[in-house]
Amino acid sequence: MEVGVIGGGAIGLLISYFLKLNGQEPVIYTRTTAQAKFLNQNGITYRNQSSNENKVNVQARCVQEYSGEEAYCIVSVKQTSISELFFLKDEKFEDVSYLFLQNGISHLKFLESLPQKNLSVGVVEHGALKDGYSSVNHLGEGRIKVSSFKGDSSSEWVEILHALNFPVTAERDWKEMLYIKLIMNACINPLTAVLRIPNGQLIENEYALSIMKELFEETILVLEMNNNREELWKELLVLCRNTSFNRSSMLKSVESGQQTEIDSITGEIIERAKNRNILVPCSMHMFKTVKALDWRG
Amino acid sequence: MEVGVIGGGAIGLLISYFLKLNGQEPVIYTRTTAQAKFLNQNGITYRNQSSNENKVNVQARCVQEYSGEEAYCIVSVKQTSISELFFLKDEKFEDVSYLFLQNGISHLKFLESLPQKNLSVGVVEHGALKDGYSSVNHLGEGRIKVSSFKGDSSSEWVEILHALNFPVTAERDWKEMLYIKLIMNACINPLTAVLRIPNGQLIENEYALSIMKELFEETILVLEMNNNREELWKELLVLCRNTSFNRSSMLKSVESGQQTEIDSITGEIIERAKNRNILVPCSMHMFKTVKALDWRG
Repeated sequence: MEVGVIGGGAIGLLISYFLKLNGQEPVIYTRTTAQAKFLNQNGITYRNQSSNENKVNVQARCVQEYSGEEAYCIVSVKQTSISELFFLKDEKFEDVSYLFLQNGISHLKFLESLPQKNLSVGVVEHGALKDGYSSVNHLGEGRIKVSSFKGDSSSEWVEILHALNFPVTAERDWKEMLYIKLIMNACINPLTAVLRIPNGQLIENEYALSIMKELFEETILVLEMNNNREELWKELLVLCRNTSFNRSSMLKSVESGQQTEIDSITGEIIERAKNRNILVPCSMHMFKTVKALDWRG
Repeated sequence: MEVGVIGGGAIGLLISYFLKLNGQEPVIYTRTTAQAKFLNQNGITYRNQSSNENKVNVQARCVQEYSGEEAYCIVSVKQTSISELFFLKDEKFEDVSYLFLQNGISHLKFLESLPQKNLSVGVVEHGALKDGYSSVNHLGEGRIKVSSFKGDSSSEWVEILHALNFPVTAERDWKEMLYIKLIMNACINPLTAVLRIPNGQLIENEYALSIMKELFEETILVLEMNNNREELWKELLVLCRNTSFNRSSMLKSVESGQQTEIDSITGEIIERAKNRNILVPCSMHMFKTVKALDWRG
């Protein structure tokens, strides 16, 4: 089956590779015609942590040619680019089933404005780094969680995507799924970026741990997840331990001089806190500090 | 005249060099006999920003041999080592006139416990880096401000120390002098260390500037310097501009993996804030962040 993939970034390429490997036909919609051309000619080069390489052929088109041919379509553009996809609001795409894979929660407003009957959201727990137009390095193997946001297509998505070497699970509660990911991101990412340490040090370094606890308390309060405090805190510590040597995406952005995703993570928490008159001093401070790191003179 | 200098760090060596150059006889008291021996054999090597070198002979002894022979004595050990000088409380040193050159204000308690009739404090606006046992790099030319803490010896100190190429001025109000320096340190040092930027970027980077303003407001409130707000803020901005390319001592400590002076700067502000029931969330956060950077696993 042909499956659309809007977005030719690291996650778009990674998913397309596994789709192809598992018998589907990905059609990648890229921002530039140059990347589409390159992908059509060269396929996707996949590299795992042991530096083993594999290559698959794929179809690619520029996103401006998107016509909604594929009944199922994954949206893997960055949170910050989601507004560029306004054309999905067209009724002619009503019957397409979309799966959105953005970080954070600021894309939810956009999803609410869409006419489709079937919309799913997912969180990606893989580490992947794009390397040129068509190469992706699979830095950390994880899984994808999918949940229906509107309609009930999550199990279909699991059927399309899941494979032994590429686990995909369906979750019942999309809100809980996204919120838990957001809590983890809000607690780990800015702090590792500011302190320039791998995830594991957040629990070894008593001062880092104390700041992370403050961020955690503010975040669960804002997201109204207090009832699960103990469990979520445990989950956060386990995540730090399991990804002990990982350098977070935000840390990588700071180190490589790229803009971070602070707006769609901590910025979103602060926005919601404001709306509900909750004070979040620690989040505010982390936000400003990462913004200062983002600043280019 | 022989002048004692307790502490063979960057500032101790720098001052001893200029004392000698200006016709006095410094006697340096070092923590280790090894350094004293080395200084006696090799003298002080002074290097300026244009890498011009000069060398002077000096006398040096291990601080355990200190007997208070010199009527005037400079104390240039680090803030954190001041308690090691408990022996100065001995009445036999009552007539010696001391000049203390520590950063921050936490040495003031120690000064209050001393029996001497003449105690001065000073702030050093030079940039200096020690290089081995006996070499000092003069990275930034500035001046030394001196003020009488007890008795009235500041003008004598100006007479001893001042030279055209080594300006020393007397200040009337020791408290104001130390507090102003502390405000500057509390606003510039931790923030440049966390963001890893030179002083000048604190005013160019709008987010950094906003955090610095918060630190400033908290600090002047705690030190009861609000009446001078406008002037002090202006002074802080001018200092950042004048030392635009400087990397603060705290940033250098973080970069070279040394312990920072955060306890005697921001730690002192927090301590005073606690005693007076003032909330200083931004200072608290900076304190924890720098402590996390200081942490060694």
